[in-house]
Amino acid sequence: MDKLITELSPPRRILMGPGPSNCHPRVLKAMATPLIGHLDPEFLEIMNDTQELLRRVFKTENQLTIPISGTGSSGMEATICNLVEEGDDVIVCVNGTFGARMVDIAERNRARVIRVDEKWGRAIPPEKVAEALKSRKVKLVAIVHAETSTGVYQQLEEIGCLAREHGALFLVDAVTSLGGCPVEVDKWGIDACYSATQKCLSAPPGLAPVTFSPRALEMIENRKTRVPSWYLDMTLVKKYWGKERVYHHTAPISMIYALREALRIILEEGLKARFARHELNHRALAAGLEAMGIDYLPPRGERLWMLNSIMIPAGVDDNKVRSQLLDNYSMEIGGGLGEFKGKVWRVGLMGESSTQANIILFLSALEEILNGEGYPVEVGAAIQAASDIYNSE
Amino acid sequence: MDKLITELSPPRRILMGPGPSNCHPRVLKAMATPLIGHLDPEFLEIMNDTQELLRRVFKTENQLTIPISGTGSSGMEATICNLVEEGDDVIVCVNGTFGARMVDIAERNRARVIRVDEKWGRAIPPEKVAEALKSRKVKLVAIVHAETSTGVYQQLEEIGCLAREHGALFLVDAVTSLGGCPVEVDKWGIDACYSATQKCLSAPPGLAPVTFSPRALEMIENRKTRVPSWYLDMTLVKKYWGKERVYHHTAPISMIYALREALRIILEEGLKARFARHELNHRALAAGLEAMGIDYLPPRGERLWMLNSIMIPAGVDDNKVRSQLLDNYSMEIGGGLGEFKGKVWRVGLMGESSTQANIILFLSALEEILNGEGYPVEVGAAIQAASDIYNSE
Repeated sequence: MDKLITELSPPRRILMGPGPSNCHPRVLKAMATPLIGHLDPEFLEIMNDTQELLRRVFKTENQLTIPISGTGSSGMEATICNLVEEGDDVIVCVNGTFGARMVDIAERNRARVIRVDEKWGRAIPPEKVAEALKSRKVKLVAIVHAETSTGVYQQLEEIGCLAREHGALFLVDAVTSLGGCPVEVDKWGIDACYSATQKCLSAPPGLAPVTFSPRALEMIENRKTRVPSWYLDMTLVKKYWGKERVYHHTAPISMIYALREALRIILEEGLKARFARHELNHRALAAGLEAMGIDYLPPRGERLWMLNSIMIPAGVDDNKVRSQLLDNYSMEIGGGLGEFKGKVWRVGLMGESSTQANIILFLSALEEILNGEGYPVEVGAAIQAASDIYNSE
Repeated sequence: MDKLITELSPPRRILMGPGPSNCHPRVLKAMATPLIGHLDPEFLEIMNDTQELLRRVFKTENQLTIPISGTGSSGMEATICNLVEEGDDVIVCVNGTFGARMVDIAERNRARVIRVDEKWGRAIPPEKVAEALKSRKVKLVAIVHAETSTGVYQQLEEIGCLAREHGALFLVDAVTSLGGCPVEVDKWGIDACYSATQKCLSAPPGLAPVTFSPRALEMIENRKTRVPSWYLDMTLVKKYWGKERVYHHTAPISMIYALREALRIILEEGLKARFARHELNHRALAAGLEAMGIDYLPPRGERLWMLNSIMIPAGVDDNKVRSQLLDNYSMEIGGGLGEFKGKVWRVGLMGESSTQANIILFLSALEEILNGEGYPVEVGAAIQAASDIYNSE
């Protein structure tokens, strides 16, 4: 029992991995707000606020825009299990872990999946989607906007147009992109989109913001079979978030407090300014890494601002470097997933974690550690290159 | 935008509904703890602590004892969708909303459900389960320990024995009971049990503690088909909580901080003392209500300590009374569900909300409001009756 009764006392970390990112103190304060009931008239107002704030961040007028009561992956499951029925043909684009996860979930929902594969570390070419759309009439085209496993950015507009031309719904994973770069749900013709709170929204993990277009909702309401998941059944969940206010499950009150606060902070900064900040900090990091001779996994033009997937220099030990970052600098970066384990680092510059101070410290730390590990880098060159980017603004 | 940029400022409530209950300030403080990563070595320790604390509260040695990343209903779904496969015969006992919800979820998982129904407001007689077990070989017997919709307490031992005698797994909903009255997972032969954080554990809503016996886990591992839900698939989730530490989904870090703290507080109080407190406060409330001429829905012996389901006196308007409690006393109690809407109040005495002060204030408030509403009650009689209970201890 002794150990268990010790006070909760986690270390203070600089979170520069694939999420969670650091939270603003105002968000943490919101988490500590005493609870009110999930049907309290005052809470219903907080729900309305949160929906309206989410619509502004998703750039949508979709009525059905809510946080699902689970982490980002529950948003993936919620969108797929509501939109897909047994035997439906769906296209899923796969160029990383999260595209592959969509295939898994679609198959569990008994869809017939047509995979559009691309080498991990590269974006999906729209021509491949066009080709797949010719093969069969499909209900849905699913794709990841920001592949957290590889750091690849995916252009969406052309693929969205293709889906619409073929009468298919367009489902987008915006887990890592939302709040860090433009996500234009209405303009890009996205029918269903999900995200997560702990990436560029910089709230704690635990909610999955989702939005469904009227077209998607109509399809859900005309399903032939019930949604396999009761917990994620949008025909029930929407009655709690809508005018009816019918109890479905107890909302995660504190997480909604925190999300509301995080969204307020985002809109106070302004989406345009926020995206510019994410881009600038990415450019500074990239300049610094280039000065160290460290390359990116994705080619230029396919790199995410908020998740920098970089090649571990030959001969350098992944774990030793990450351990030193954690132990000596209390700084977390991510390792590679799947085939990139031990080959790639994933450096997150998400939301509150995307700051000049974090980047300069990370570059300094990495320089010091790599020099100690026998991968010599020119002292000061990375900082100089990053600083040049900031000074040229 | 104006309204949306106002600071989060919910009222301060006394939460005496069917959950959430009030949180201890230490739990709220834990919620505000800055994040660390979900694979940080320090977080893995916090996960281990939380599992061990949960085992003590569930009274089990089950290795697979974890919080599911969703609210209580996700625990119901997680247990059912992992244990049940298409075509399985299962018995579900139904005497309220949550038994009915189990049927719904089991059917979505394509089980063949044999319902054992009892009048809402009454416990399930073991003989009815024995009868149902004779009809067919079943895989699972599912039952609610504390029916939040009706305030009914269910004895479990005899039904657990029956299930085991017939080679069936025993699944128990302990959403409202865990932390408020004895829940003996190992002793009662429970194979799977789920709860929620916002009832007698007095943490915010957002996690569903679950535990699976080795027998249940073996059944899951020998499934013929994959679990329909990827998010809740215990064969994957257990690899993150187990020694392998394989990433599945990002854990809701802050909620786990809060649960750990809430569990520490529970064990500091001691389970025995905590249950005695819940019983005593229930007895005091019941004495006060009796003095006012207000009856319970369930008969004596079938009443929950932590959720007091009481009859609204004839001629008294449900909404008017609850509005006055909320507006004038900032006190939340619950209304009735289903056929009991407008007929029943549900007064929660859960965890931190189960205090002498809350009971005396509630009885005083109710007395004042009922007298104003034309249902005359003798001034001071309820308080006297409740006080007598406390003084006789």
